[in-house]
Amino acid sequence: MRVLGIDPGSRVTGFGVIEGGPGLEVISWGVIRLGGGPLPERLWKIFSRVTDLLMEFRPQAVVLEEVIPETFPRAALRLGQAQGAAILAAAQNGLPVYLYHPLEVKQALTGYGNASKEQTAYMVKYLLGIKERLPLDASDALSVAIYHLQNIKREEAWCSPK
Amino acid sequence: MRVLGIDPGSRVTGFGVIEGGPGLEVISWGVIRLGGGPLPERLWKIFSRVTDLLMEFRPQAVVLEEVIPETFPRAALRLGQAQGAAILAAAQNGLPVYLYHPLEVKQALTGYGNASKEQTAYMVKYLLGIKERLPLDASDALSVAIYHLQNIKREEAWCSPK
Repeated sequence: MRVLGIDPGSRVTGFGVIEGGPGLEVISWGVIRLGGGPLPERLWKIFSRVTDLLMEFRPQAVVLEEVIPETFPRAALRLGQAQGAAILAAAQNGLPVYLYHPLEVKQALTGYGNASKEQTAYMVKYLLGIKERLPLDASDALSVAIYHLQNIKREEAWCSPK
Repeated sequence: MRVLGIDPGSRVTGFGVIEGGPGLEVISWGVIRLGGGPLPERLWKIFSRVTDLLMEFRPQAVVLEEVIPETFPRAALRLGQAQGAAILAAAQNGLPVYLYHPLEVKQALTGYGNASKEQTAYMVKYLLGIKERLPLDASDALSVAIYHLQNIKREEAWCSPK
């Protein structure tokens, strides 16, 4: 079971590919820099780069953290646009999309729902045996992919329509 | 100059196609009902139906109202997702996307920036000579298309990347 985790942002979108078997094997990770161009261009970068990742790594599912709109409405709007672009790339490729609450992911990974991004990154690197420097956006994407692989049986699929 | 106006919503998305020449000619309008399915399915409906409209009516531009995140963060998130799906369909087809502030559109159409949807619909029907019942979501989509055609010279294009 191979999954692509995505952490969509309006300026940077992180991603990570993990293969789950008896253990967890990290296949790839990185960040997509969206630049400061107009909104259609930034959304198109997310959509087309995620499509490229699906072609390259052939995951069986795409997983993301839910956007929790407790923050500023403007931030929620921008994250919604970015998240929508990533979800559409999965839907266009007929892949199931799973969304998890960020607190749930952090709780499972670190034992603490309000863990910082740095604490989460520390556990992600430990669990996947990553020695290199890991960008925090990529670490967030890997964390939700790990969570999915460790909890897939008890979670509901948000099946895509194609 | 033919334009497609879209009013993206999380449950219903309105659309309208107008041809601008010496006058304004309405070509089509309608609503896309998204149903109560999972998020990827609803976003996919917007993306694929807007793509169909672009194929059918061949507009030269796609116009939308900006989402003004003064409302609840959750509403901003949902509107951002829906708006992103519509913008992506335009970007995939290489069309320029224009976004206008809703107050600006209402002010120009009715002389009153806080006009109700019903007041806007009244003016839209009058300007386009529509006698039939016009769904409010379609009327909102037509209103931004009218605004674009009447103000195109002084507005900045949000050019799409393809």
